[in-house]
Amino acid sequence: MFDLKSYLDSRKRMVDKALEQKITPGKESDRLSRAMAYSLMAGGKRIRPILCIAAAEAISGADVDAEILECACALEMLHTYSLIHDDLPAMDNDRLRRGKQTCHIAFDESTAILAGDALLTLAFEILAMAGTTHLKHTHQWIKIIHIISRAAGYQGMIEGQMRDIFFEGKTVSLDQLKDMHALKTGALIRASVNAGALLADASLEKIDRLDRYARNIGLAFQITDDILNIEGDPEIMGKAAGTDQLCNKATYPALLGLGPSNAYLSKLIESALLSLDTFGRQADPLRAIADYIVQRKK
Amino acid sequence: MFDLKSYLDSRKRMVDKALEQKITPGKESDRLSRAMAYSLMAGGKRIRPILCIAAAEAISGADVDAEILECACALEMLHTYSLIHDDLPAMDNDRLRRGKQTCHIAFDESTAILAGDALLTLAFEILAMAGTTHLKHTHQWIKIIHIISRAAGYQGMIEGQMRDIFFEGKTVSLDQLKDMHALKTGALIRASVNAGALLADASLEKIDRLDRYARNIGLAFQITDDILNIEGDPEIMGKAAGTDQLCNKATYPALLGLGPSNAYLSKLIESALLSLDTFGRQADPLRAIADYIVQRKK
Repeated sequence: MFDLKSYLDSRKRMVDKALEQKITPGKESDRLSRAMAYSLMAGGKRIRPILCIAAAEAISGADVDAEILECACALEMLHTYSLIHDDLPAMDNDRLRRGKQTCHIAFDESTAILAGDALLTLAFEILAMAGTTHLKHTHQWIKIIHIISRAAGYQGMIEGQMRDIFFEGKTVSLDQLKDMHALKTGALIRASVNAGALLADASLEKIDRLDRYARNIGLAFQITDDILNIEGDPEIMGKAAGTDQLCNKATYPALLGLGPSNAYLSKLIESALLSLDTFGRQADPLRAIADYIVQRKK
Repeated sequence: MFDLKSYLDSRKRMVDKALEQKITPGKESDRLSRAMAYSLMAGGKRIRPILCIAAAEAISGADVDAEILECACALEMLHTYSLIHDDLPAMDNDRLRRGKQTCHIAFDESTAILAGDALLTLAFEILAMAGTTHLKHTHQWIKIIHIISRAAGYQGMIEGQMRDIFFEGKTVSLDQLKDMHALKTGALIRASVNAGALLADASLEKIDRLDRYARNIGLAFQITDDILNIEGDPEIMGKAAGTDQLCNKATYPALLGLGPSNAYLSKLIESALLSLDTFGRQADPLRAIADYIVQRKK
């Protein structure tokens, strides 16, 4: 029986340790670097880095090496930058995230904008640095930068956030909701898995299977979030339950109903697991992560 | 006699044409892509792209090829993103730029934040795409991404903007002012010249000389801006003269006096030209650009 909890703990520790070494305090003033580190180390679950690592392990089975941790750090920085900017007063105007003050509350708005910009830029610096250091993999790294920048960009994550703002208070179809989430959270999750696979020199067929896995669990994560928001324990969510309904946000339970949303969730997890059926025991972390998405609700 | 005006016009046209093809309109809504294109095509002088091109020409003398234009586009996107974010209400709160409404006025604040994020991310997508397309130069491209991301990042351009905000209303030393400008505008100008040189396969010695040129003209540009703000024609500046004084901003004329600022400017241009003395006629564009910085004042 695969012990997911200790796997997630150990991988999170590796990622946290690597992240801690990535930001050098500023000389004239350390305000910018402190704001970056504040949000980066604010207790994220490191889902994207762990998916990247687990995808590499599913291919090569090898220990986590320094190279994959570079990619993991860049992915978490991109995720953190998106949270900092999404929380800004002009966007979702959130004062709390994971029980801590958001960056623009703990510092100020201009510092939060710049800290977000800086984490976004540092992600690419880290990826490029890895590509110039690990010469054996330069072609993979440039491809990874391409995949990640596309996923994070105006045809990916940023467009997803734009639609999320745009949809507020509007009637949204199921397809529109699905597309929005595929962009806002799905794109970077897929890129994380793809990047890990590329660094482990996966075949095109395996990359394709891992990508299918990532597409399914990305959507499954979102539906779980929506369901938890209705039935969930505020402790687990880190925010009050029922807030989506209050905000009149389009969610899966609101559009589909709670029963069909749960059924759809199970179908997605099944498809995710199916796409891994040609993988050996090395893919057990990925399998356990898929199962965990459903269990998280209980 | 080198005709700088027609050189700048032709290179600007090339860059503008390339930039126009870079942004695909969004499907669900084209608001994000319109905001990106609005600021990108708002009539910039394309200084950084032209310096990148001119540096490549100084090495190879060849015609401007598609590869160098990719790099030029990425540099202009980074510059434009920094302007969009600097103009935001939480930062400099500017309503006009180059005589046009700033992005957050023409659209809204959340769109402007996302359009800036998107141009920043697209810059790296373009660079990585070029690196995966032009396989002969993959190692140069990954190095270019590294140089540019460092220059644009929290130890470069973003730190410069942070200090600029931080210094407001404070007494600033000449060294502090110099360091701030070296970060805020100097770093990306140096990266532009270095990237052009790398793409033209320059030797280390030539890269070093071009870097010295870039450092000198980067600072010279800033001093000229400061002087123009006092004596300048609002038509040339695109904004009212004397605004720095009103805002109590630290400037070279304020710290050094107008006469010594002009003398320092001449010294910088002289050093910039000196660093090109081993280059042939191919470096005439770079020389003419250096001369133009001083002439701009007249």
